[in-house]
Amino acid sequence: MEEQMMEMLRRQAPLIHCITNYVTVNDVANMILAAGASPIMADGIYEVEDVTSICNGLVINIGTLNERTIESMIKAGRQAEKLGHPIIFDPVGAGASAFRRETAKQILSELSCTVIRGNVSEIKTIARELGISWTGDSNLESQGVDAHELDVVTEENLEQMCGLVREVSRRTGAVTAVTGKIDLVADEKQVYVIRNGHPMIARVTGTGCMLDGVVAAFVCAHKDQVLKAAAMAVAAEGICGELAYERVAAEGSGSGSFRMYLMDFMSQMDDEQLRRGRNIEIR
Amino acid sequence: MEEQMMEMLRRQAPLIHCITNYVTVNDVANMILAAGASPIMADGIYEVEDVTSICNGLVINIGTLNERTIESMIKAGRQAEKLGHPIIFDPVGAGASAFRRETAKQILSELSCTVIRGNVSEIKTIARELGISWTGDSNLESQGVDAHELDVVTEENLEQMCGLVREVSRRTGAVTAVTGKIDLVADEKQVYVIRNGHPMIARVTGTGCMLDGVVAAFVCAHKDQVLKAAAMAVAAEGICGELAYERVAAEGSGSGSFRMYLMDFMSQMDDEQLRRGRNIEIR
Amino acid sequence: MEEQMMEMLRRQAPLIHCITNYVTVNDVANMILAAGASPIMADGIYEVEDVTSICNGLVINIGTLNERTIESMIKAGRQAEKLGHPIIFDPVGAGASAFRRETAKQILSELSCTVIRGNVSEIKTIARELGISWTGDSNLESQGVDAHELDVVTEENLEQMCGLVREVSRRTGAVTAVTGKIDLVADEKQVYVIRNGHPMIARVTGTGCMLDGVVAAFVCAHKDQVLKAAAMAVAAEGICGELAYERVAAEGSGSGSFRMYLMDFMSQMDDEQLRRGRNIEIR
Repeated sequence: MEEQMMEMLRRQAPLIHCITNYVTVNDVANMILAAGASPIMADGIYEVEDVTSICNGLVINIGTLNERTIESMIKAGRQAEKLGHPIIFDPVGAGASAFRRETAKQILSELSCTVIRGNVSEIKTIARELGISWTGDSNLESQGVDAHELDVVTEENLEQMCGLVREVSRRTGAVTAVTGKIDLVADEKQVYVIRNGHPMIARVTGTGCMLDGVVAAFVCAHKDQVLKAAAMAVAAEGICGELAYERVAAEGSGSGSFRMYLMDFMSQMDDEQLRRGRNIEIR
Repeated sequence: MEEQMMEMLRRQAPLIHCITNYVTVNDVANMILAAGASPIMADGIYEVEDVTSICNGLVINIGTLNERTIESMIKAGRQAEKLGHPIIFDPVGAGASAFRRETAKQILSELSCTVIRGNVSEIKTIARELGISWTGDSNLESQGVDAHELDVVTEENLEQMCGLVREVSRRTGAVTAVTGKIDLVADEKQVYVIRNGHPMIARVTGTGCMLDGVVAAFVCAHKDQVLKAAAMAVAAEGICGELAYERVAAEGSGSGSFRMYLMDFMSQMDDEQLRRGRNIEIR
Repeated sequence: MEEQMMEMLRRQAPLIHCITNYVTVNDVANMILAAGASPIMADGIYEVEDVTSICNGLVINIGTLNERTIESMIKAGRQAEKLGHPIIFDPVGAGASAFRRETAKQILSELSCTVIRGNVSEIKTIARELGISWTGDSNLESQGVDAHELDVVTEENLEQMCGLVREVSRRTGAVTAVTGKIDLVADEKQVYVIRNGHPMIARVTGTGCMLDGVVAAFVCAHKDQVLKAAAMAVAAEGICGELAYERVAAEGSGSGSFRMYLMDFMSQMDDEQLRRGRNIEIR
């Protein structure tokens, strides 16, 4: 079934409404196009409902939050819910300020998100806000929008982290996607453990935000299998990272080229490449 | 005369004030520089008049509209009019929400635009708002910021579409530029039918917004021949698209590289290349 | 000492809070990452203090100013001062509007900036606002966000310009960095005269803003030698410009490729390359 996920996505070309940050918004739009979907960015309070209504899914990303856009996020989210559109929520830098923590909490309590995607530090912040406690919670200080260097999913803490993301999924009803060295995509029962990607992905800003868009594209095209679709999206961007790194290493080029190749490879990704390249274990 | 359009533009290096969306704003600025002009982006209500006053032309693009910037658009527009500066208006996603439709209508009624540039769906929305009716108006649902796949200028409907853009020009007093598979640039009497470009242009976000900037650059440098200047700008970006595609096809690269080559070729464009590459028929 | 500046910066990986413009923000974030630091962009009034508090330094850039963000700039700046964090201030287009001039003045009077960085026209506007007069002040009209073509540091006016930047430093207590054909980085006693870079840098938007981020990265990692650190940052980006131009010239490519190579070379810069490449004279 997942063997034609990419092809079906490109054929359907879902329209994705993004309320996202102004730092990485251009790359998000281009990545959504590269994946075969179509983006529209709109956060004006007077139009978000209209825009959501003509789209197939909604991305909410709090990367550059201000009071004006929160209201738009909630309004668009309610409309998306009413229409049964998937909502992808990215609590960017949730630990960086009380304002972001509160807003993330508000969004999770007022909206029923389909997928929550973040780095390990962000998902842990969400877990704490939900009142989940777990052994080994070191409550590390936030490192802004990047994961704390000690906040990492490793082979050693994998079982425990799988438990944590399953629990976040159980409490929120959303598929939870934690991305980093090892990626975890989980509902309350199953975890897709994905070992794709390359550390250089972290040297380009917005690769997480771009992934929000790719996840939205996959999930909108495969609404009946959200968990699998989100996992394939994560694997797809990871594979692009591996291919981009190979090319950059061969050329001796740097992070500017790497970013461009990420886009290049996503625009050329097909199901055969996804099938061969993905490194997924289901727990 | 048009044989030195590019050279004269680069020599004059007009300063373009852009009130545009935050999605594609960086590419717009870089494309304006690549074409030989100089951009300044400013939308603060307390400074738009000052900024317009030191510039040579104004781009108004409603790609990410909010109530704050509409007022700035009108204020800057009035100042541009007062100073006799060309105003390029792009009704991005005009059909995507009532708010955009209303704003597009307001801008067209309060300001006297020099060029209106959009995709087929956007220009049709404008035509409907102006009360123009035409045979074959299928009133397709909006596809966000991209043209509906059935909203396309073809050899079959060309004559009818030429009539439509001439009529939009007659009603607004602006040169109307519709870009897509075939591009039409018209005043009320003449239509430049331009068959440059490549479908891959639509796989990169903001190529329309970038064209707004290029059109502004050409028109500001050639205020006495707006129609021809706008048509040359459209042809120039189309040629860049063709060259970028050739290179991407030869390399086997993707949409990230394509975007960069678009910039590269614009920064290298000269009149000789424009003369040889353009495919323009005047009707 | 400066021989390990790059290495120490990469090891410390300081977190930089940027309140900057939406035109070039993505490139600023990527350049900060390329230099080895980590960016977080946040301008919401309810969170700027929190965000500043978890960071190591602050960039304030008025490239797309509006009334909402000025308050955030001041608030974040006060918090940065309280915590002893370096503040890098870029008065983008300070001469383009009364609003920018007033805001630049307000920021300089309310905050104690560590580094002021701008092009020649911007620094001259600041000098005038500070009431500094100098022989040869032609009071050229602003050219938006780019320096006026006649506002240039040359071998002929070098001594006079060195005097001017030293005076700006004396009045503000900040290190002053003027970038252009020849770059000057000064405190009230010394001037680093830097002859790195390439004119093509001016054909890409935001290279000044990117430099703000690089300066912040260097200064945050070397708080005890702000002048030298700022000068090395300026030299580093200049060297990247030279290397990028070499590559673009060899390939026959354009400004899109140049922009990418700037990032590439910054991400690969090391102390050995910086030592060999820099062209610095101390006056």
